[in-house]
Amino acid sequence: MSTYRDEGPPVGGPAPELVASGFALENADAPFLHRGLNLADMAHVLDLSRRGLVPPTAQRALLELLLVAQATPAEEFPYDPELGEPYNSREAWFVSQLGDVAGWLHAGRPRREAVRIALRLHVRHQIAELVTEAVRFGRDAVARAEEHTETVMPDQTYLQHAQPSTFAHYLLSFVYSTVRDGQRLLAELDWVDTSPGGAGCVNGTRLLEDRAFVAESLGFDGVIEHTRDAMWQVDGLISVLAVASSLVSNLSKLAEDLEIWSSSEFDYVDLDHGFTRASVLMPQKRNPYSLSIIRGASGVLIGRLSGFLAVSKSPSARSDNLIYAYGEVPRALDLTLRITRLAAGVVRTLRVNAERLAEEVRGGYSQATDLAEHLVQTCDVDYRTAYLVVGRAVRAASKAGVPGVEITGEMLDRAAVEHTGHALGLAGTDLTGALDPWRIVLSRDAQGGAAPAAVARMTADLTARLDDLDARARERLAAFDGAETALLATVRQATSPAMEETR
Amino acid sequence: MSTYRDEGPPVGGPAPELVASGFALENADAPFLHRGLNLADMAHVLDLSRRGLVPPTAQRALLELLLVAQATPAEEFPYDPELGEPYNSREAWFVSQLGDVAGWLHAGRPRREAVRIALRLHVRHQIAELVTEAVRFGRDAVARAEEHTETVMPDQTYLQHAQPSTFAHYLLSFVYSTVRDGQRLLAELDWVDTSPGGAGCVNGTRLLEDRAFVAESLGFDGVIEHTRDAMWQVDGLISVLAVASSLVSNLSKLAEDLEIWSSSEFDYVDLDHGFTRASVLMPQKRNPYSLSIIRGASGVLIGRLSGFLAVSKSPSARSDNLIYAYGEVPRALDLTLRITRLAAGVVRTLRVNAERLAEEVRGGYSQATDLAEHLVQTCDVDYRTAYLVVGRAVRAASKAGVPGVEITGEMLDRAAVEHTGHALGLAGTDLTGALDPWRIVLSRDAQGGAAPAAVARMTADLTARLDDLDARARERLAAFDGAETALLATVRQATSPAMEETR
Amino acid sequence: MSTYRDEGPPVGGPAPELVASGFALENADAPFLHRGLNLADMAHVLDLSRRGLVPPTAQRALLELLLVAQATPAEEFPYDPELGEPYNSREAWFVSQLGDVAGWLHAGRPRREAVRIALRLHVRHQIAELVTEAVRFGRDAVARAEEHTETVMPDQTYLQHAQPSTFAHYLLSFVYSTVRDGQRLLAELDWVDTSPGGAGCVNGTRLLEDRAFVAESLGFDGVIEHTRDAMWQVDGLISVLAVASSLVSNLSKLAEDLEIWSSSEFDYVDLDHGFTRASVLMPQKRNPYSLSIIRGASGVLIGRLSGFLAVSKSPSARSDNLIYAYGEVPRALDLTLRITRLAAGVVRTLRVNAERLAEEVRGGYSQATDLAEHLVQTCDVDYRTAYLVVGRAVRAASKAGVPGVEITGEMLDRAAVEHTGHALGLAGTDLTGALDPWRIVLSRDAQGGAAPAAVARMTADLTARLDDLDARARERLAAFDGAETALLATVRQATSPAMEETR
Amino acid sequence: MSTYRDEGPPVGGPAPELVASGFALENADAPFLHRGLNLADMAHVLDLSRRGLVPPTAQRALLELLLVAQATPAEEFPYDPELGEPYNSREAWFVSQLGDVAGWLHAGRPRREAVRIALRLHVRHQIAELVTEAVRFGRDAVARAEEHTETVMPDQTYLQHAQPSTFAHYLLSFVYSTVRDGQRLLAELDWVDTSPGGAGCVNGTRLLEDRAFVAESLGFDGVIEHTRDAMWQVDGLISVLAVASSLVSNLSKLAEDLEIWSSSEFDYVDLDHGFTRASVLMPQKRNPYSLSIIRGASGVLIGRLSGFLAVSKSPSARSDNLIYAYGEVPRALDLTLRITRLAAGVVRTLRVNAERLAEEVRGGYSQATDLAEHLVQTCDVDYRTAYLVVGRAVRAASKAGVPGVEITGEMLDRAAVEHTGHALGLAGTDLTGALDPWRIVLSRDAQGGAAPAAVARMTADLTARLDDLDARARERLAAFDGAETALLATVRQATSPAMEETR
Repeated sequence: MSTYRDEGPPVGGPAPELVASGFALENADAPFLHRGLNLADMAHVLDLSRRGLVPPTAQRALLELLLVAQATPAEEFPYDPELGEPYNSREAWFVSQLGDVAGWLHAGRPRREAVRIALRLHVRHQIAELVTEAVRFGRDAVARAEEHTETVMPDQTYLQHAQPSTFAHYLLSFVYSTVRDGQRLLAELDWVDTSPGGAGCVNGTRLLEDRAFVAESLGFDGVIEHTRDAMWQVDGLISVLAVASSLVSNLSKLAEDLEIWSSSEFDYVDLDHGFTRASVLMPQKRNPYSLSIIRGASGVLIGRLSGFLAVSKSPSARSDNLIYAYGEVPRALDLTLRITRLAAGVVRTLRVNAERLAEEVRGGYSQATDLAEHLVQTCDVDYRTAYLVVGRAVRAASKAGVPGVEITGEMLDRAAVEHTGHALGLAGTDLTGALDPWRIVLSRDAQGGAAPAAVARMTADLTARLDDLDARARERLAAFDGAETALLATVRQATSPAMEETR
Repeated sequence: MSTYRDEGPPVGGPAPELVASGFALENADAPFLHRGLNLADMAHVLDLSRRGLVPPTAQRALLELLLVAQATPAEEFPYDPELGEPYNSREAWFVSQLGDVAGWLHAGRPRREAVRIALRLHVRHQIAELVTEAVRFGRDAVARAEEHTETVMPDQTYLQHAQPSTFAHYLLSFVYSTVRDGQRLLAELDWVDTSPGGAGCVNGTRLLEDRAFVAESLGFDGVIEHTRDAMWQVDGLISVLAVASSLVSNLSKLAEDLEIWSSSEFDYVDLDHGFTRASVLMPQKRNPYSLSIIRGASGVLIGRLSGFLAVSKSPSARSDNLIYAYGEVPRALDLTLRITRLAAGVVRTLRVNAERLAEEVRGGYSQATDLAEHLVQTCDVDYRTAYLVVGRAVRAASKAGVPGVEITGEMLDRAAVEHTGHALGLAGTDLTGALDPWRIVLSRDAQGGAAPAAVARMTADLTARLDDLDARARERLAAFDGAETALLATVRQATSPAMEETR
Repeated sequence: MSTYRDEGPPVGGPAPELVASGFALENADAPFLHRGLNLADMAHVLDLSRRGLVPPTAQRALLELLLVAQATPAEEFPYDPELGEPYNSREAWFVSQLGDVAGWLHAGRPRREAVRIALRLHVRHQIAELVTEAVRFGRDAVARAEEHTETVMPDQTYLQHAQPSTFAHYLLSFVYSTVRDGQRLLAELDWVDTSPGGAGCVNGTRLLEDRAFVAESLGFDGVIEHTRDAMWQVDGLISVLAVASSLVSNLSKLAEDLEIWSSSEFDYVDLDHGFTRASVLMPQKRNPYSLSIIRGASGVLIGRLSGFLAVSKSPSARSDNLIYAYGEVPRALDLTLRITRLAAGVVRTLRVNAERLAEEVRGGYSQATDLAEHLVQTCDVDYRTAYLVVGRAVRAASKAGVPGVEITGEMLDRAAVEHTGHALGLAGTDLTGALDPWRIVLSRDAQGGAAPAAVARMTADLTARLDDLDARARERLAAFDGAETALLATVRQATSPAMEETR
Repeated sequence: MSTYRDEGPPVGGPAPELVASGFALENADAPFLHRGLNLADMAHVLDLSRRGLVPPTAQRALLELLLVAQATPAEEFPYDPELGEPYNSREAWFVSQLGDVAGWLHAGRPRREAVRIALRLHVRHQIAELVTEAVRFGRDAVARAEEHTETVMPDQTYLQHAQPSTFAHYLLSFVYSTVRDGQRLLAELDWVDTSPGGAGCVNGTRLLEDRAFVAESLGFDGVIEHTRDAMWQVDGLISVLAVASSLVSNLSKLAEDLEIWSSSEFDYVDLDHGFTRASVLMPQKRNPYSLSIIRGASGVLIGRLSGFLAVSKSPSARSDNLIYAYGEVPRALDLTLRITRLAAGVVRTLRVNAERLAEEVRGGYSQATDLAEHLVQTCDVDYRTAYLVVGRAVRAASKAGVPGVEITGEMLDRAAVEHTGHALGLAGTDLTGALDPWRIVLSRDAQGGAAPAAVARMTADLTARLDDLDARARERLAAFDGAETALLATVRQATSPAMEETR
């Protein structure tokens, strides 16, 4: 044991450099935590009270003051970096109002526990809300897909025409990923919606042995078993940020596709005016600004995730692990919410240039694969040979300005002779079934294909899954609101004049 | 339609700059894909055959050659960047062996589909294996915890003594996070273990309308519905990498704790010799090298995740999305596997200096909170007051060289007089219950606390959950092996002389 | 040319989803740009005027209004997301005050150019200021080093005693890195302090052919040559963020060292009270909170850098490249500034437990390397042999509780006999020169060693380099202020009643 | 002092988990270090010898063996994870060849110092080479720009036509950024090309007091002053990786532009066949695969940088800081080299569809800004008014299918009447100067504009700067080679029979 070290709380106020950094940073996050801190404090006072650990008058005074705090918006509450982080400002305010009576609040619970609870109360709400927004995006996309089941287009890889498809099929591919990320969010909600209450600093407290009370008061779906884990776990936050990144990454892909397709050269789609922005200089411009916002947000969120991972690359039970999380996580989820809403709006109001899409699919060579497969089916040649024959024919056609739909059996035979030395006997045969984009699309009625029947099965399936996600998320939101309302009612009752008289 | 563009396959060989970059990079990943490509090709040939799309002799020749490929280690297979990416090398080899007959292989399936399948076959195995390794770490930690349920120690926050606890309690906190990440991995395995087979480039093929055959042949647990999504989804890979990062991040925290505790100043623990490394220069040193390896790997994995996210920040259906994944994801998971195994070994063989831990907990002031709570319980003072009185007493004790366990009622009364103007009547009272670390630990028998009874409940619970994880992962591994064995048996049968005779 | 697309500015207001995302985000960044936008607008009006492109009365009205804007804090200026991004709010306000006259402002310059200029005006100031803060940290560390040139300590690798050194030597190692990053910042300042003025959207304007005027008016150190590059370059911002990350990463290493050394087990150092924080629950605690803030900031900045890189992974000339930069870069630099200041304060006020350091170096075996080297020098044995002999001797000494300073020739001979079969003739020889930590330190007077003479050379060198950095940064700051003052004076003069009369 | 801890080197071999992780990982990096380790060892032996610290026969034996090692490719050298990291394998091999004589090698130098030197020898070469590759890309782009100074095109923002420009102007914008990053690389080369030799573990050695010898022997441009800093600095590596990320990020922007412009819809450019790849399935496809490789590499490098930063977020003087750097940094730089070369090849061979570019610029409205500026110049209206008038005219024109070049004064007057109530008197006036794209381009002869004269000034300037970069990089490469050749010559002379006779 050292007599060099100063044990016990620090003497004197904080250094100005600390006020301007740590304390200022934490106070900037107070709005995310304010409501949750009030609720956590109420639940804690009730818990202490029911065990007789707080004198009734102190309990009543504390609860009354907490109701005042709850009615005060965070922006108006006297959070002040000079006093420390937000919890310190609260403590100072409680003391200024109640004197020593305020001191009962801290029995059996560290600041850390209060703030961890407040963070979870905030984040659980954000996650559930994000699921509903993801659902909204999904529903909007499904609705637009239903309009475009017959809007033929050349689907692309490397931005080169690949195969005939439909705009409906294209759009649905973004919904599947959204549904999966929505499911991941709900799975993580199970994690975030558990209570660290009663964990103490790392090893509980001698005062409170029933950790369920606080959990139930705050509407948590259970207690986090291990007290040290309860205080310090970060895996769930990592996972939530990763899913948020994934969700917006998917929207970003769609946004970049649409930005390209909004060019006058593609002219496949056009954003609704409300999602574009004028140039201040260039009179001809109507810029697809919303798409830039979506794509940039995707990059920002990648940084928020990697930053959070880097922050949490520390030893265990160190404050830096989670101090920054109080602001970083809510802000990242808030950005995700806004961007998801924006993407839904973009899709909902998007104008799709069906004529242009049809023109492009007819002017290109995206049916070449079907044509080669047709040769395999009808000419008894292996695929590689068929591919090379068709490849030659396409090259010759393009040089001659002949579009894919007009390729003839003669042209194929000519290519076959060049490649293999003999014709395939295609001259004069009807190739429409292998060349017509719409007939190609109709042939894709296997699982997950672009044929209207296959798309209809998918929209039905997705609608059911989106409905399920939505119902589950809304149920959670209702439960959160219900629990908070019930807690406030309990507190109001405990501070009502009637209660006073009974004492 | 432009007559400027060259439509059709490129003419001439690849540029040397491309061979040295894209093709060299992809070939370096061939070992991860080799086995899966062979299996995917076999399933595809069988699928084509059963529909009569491949002549029987071609089928037989292809399957026989695929058996040869399967028996050839990736390192010995003629993968060659000059020929393109690995699939091109395979094609060239098939042609060199079979001539045009090799061309039947490509009907109805793009390279992309084959490689995506191979990646999933590899990754599904890695994920399931990773779960078993996470379980091994968890079991080793639980076993060590069971040895140390009575090893009292000062648990820390900010690396400052916080509360009395036990080494068992400390260690278990890392197992909970591991179990959660193990569960996340199994959830993602459900995703990865689905078949993109039959998706074609983006919109299936006119040749094959039953996508279930390939899925079942390869032991996939279902088909990915939407064909475009099947080809291009990345959300599951993001999630897998995020969980891997989280898993190793947790091990890294433990590693850094242990590195600090291995210092001669702490002397809490000592690594087994086999996990340390000699200095070549300094004769006194036995460096905890394993811990550096674990911690560095955590940083590397953060980069792999953020890199993958940055790669996939692209438009949709672009090859860069997934080309790099073929190497990045298997390598990242392989690193995760090795690091998890290493961490298990470190924990399994760790020497714990129980005497030193006991000495430290007795020499410090980690019982101060219990003491303050004792004052609240017995002296009718609010917690803030109790806290300040104890704080003063601790400061005075430390200056006088008196450890926490020897603080007396008189010392507290003196502090109370200083702080409040009057004593608390503690002189002569027995404070042992609030001062003795072991009795404090025993008081923590609420849910998740450090009391041996609470720890026993947790080890039982964790053991059950680890067993469950292990069983589920091993079941999956057995199913994967079973499916692959069955496919090979089918192929062998289809190429057996008996089969030939029947034709 | 398509008649499908709507060419020309959008009709109707922005969608609420866009107001709540893109426009709200950009307006949140307005405080960073407000001052610079005012200055940029003033310079632009003056530029237009001197070419006679703006009527004198419009010029005067615009400049007068810009002076009002400049006198209005950003928080009070009517920035409003409903109107678009901040530039749109400005435009709306100008129109509300001046009617059509406001329209002269936009001639020959896009919004993008104005905002890029404003960002550079802000960032150039932050960079120069950051250099002065880095210098302050460096000077504080040098000053503390000068106090501790004789404070012997065991320097560590893997947190294991490695070699005897001094606290001065330890501390200076953080200054070298700081000086290098300071130099990098000044190099990047050369880049950021150049003017994109006159670049137009991507290709200048027909109206203004002399790009030097705006550059000089705003005190830029030159013009960015290529107009497209001028608008879209991001390499400098990447580099600035990378240096900021590096700078704080270095401080984070120091912070983690100090956090470990602040433990009661190490007890090497103790933070000044003003840089610690009390626990609300635990009365014994005085947590080194400042160190957590520094370390967490390091992680946050890693995320800001990787996020910015991910954002800028886009095609060229896309708005997302830089829209997010308006907030991300200033905020990241602001965090860096606060953290650098905090670290300087921590070091300046740090208490160093010299006695404990001396005790530890005397109680351990950090002189083992010197001892082995002594054997090489005096016993004609190769180093590997010497190393193994000393290793054995240390192991035996530690088991016997004999510290390194008390190892004797006899003990070494015994180890030599065990290892090689014969003694080295060391019995009875004086080993003090190789065992005494202070004499070892004194022997390190080669370049960069810990001997006081070597340290004195380094402190002199570092002081000169820090002075140079400081002088260069302050010169730049003075020049920025001078230019802005001069511009405002010109504007005031142009709007003075006297000027009016001359017209 | 603890008697619990085992002091001294570990007893027994490494655990298999460690062999399969840390040691396997480090051995996989041996090829990057092999050559440098040989050279570092030679310099060290010569340094020891000239001070008489190594017996002449041992010196000779060691140097002879080192020449053998140097002649052995890394792949054939017996590096073996079972023996530890690569340095341990070397030591084992030396002992197997020379017995105890091998032990002289380790005097006065830790493994860490040897490996740090080897890393710097490797990285300095890569950096200088990367500068020459960046120059090659720059020169290729400048050469192509010189071909296209009159290739008019619509430059874009948001991928929407913005202003008339030329392909030359477009292309040069990527060269400026490349030159800046090249300069940054050379600045960092100054850092990397300094010697940590003689730094010992953290505080030098009693044996060697002149650190210049090793530095000069290895051709380093100076000695890193502070010994602890010399061993542990990471700022330079962070900076090098950041510049590499920035460099490839710039290439990635170009690549994505080109991928979009390679679409049949844009048809602006076409990649040379050698930089494309066939689809195995789709006969019509010639995919711009090189561009995917470039873009994906950009994402991978972002991850390498953020991973390295996360790794180095550790306390100071911890091995994880740099152990992973041995592989991560060389691999990242190697990828950067290959990608830069690939991008140069893509640009050098790119086909530019000048006709299509001209057609697009004539068919769109990118002259609208010039037209509005023309109104400001000639009609005495403010810009905002001019902008709105032109905006209306463009909208009307586009709906009527009239391209921008055919807008007439009448159309503008009509729009003016609609907007302001009166015409601007433009009917019948000649607007060619404001409408004709080529005349607009010609008007941009101010600094950095697209007029051929301005472009010519830039190509001249860039050529000079590229030449300078190239000369400086090649000078460094020659110096590195010269130093290594000289060192080998010295070693060969020291081991020649003649030398032997003189003894």
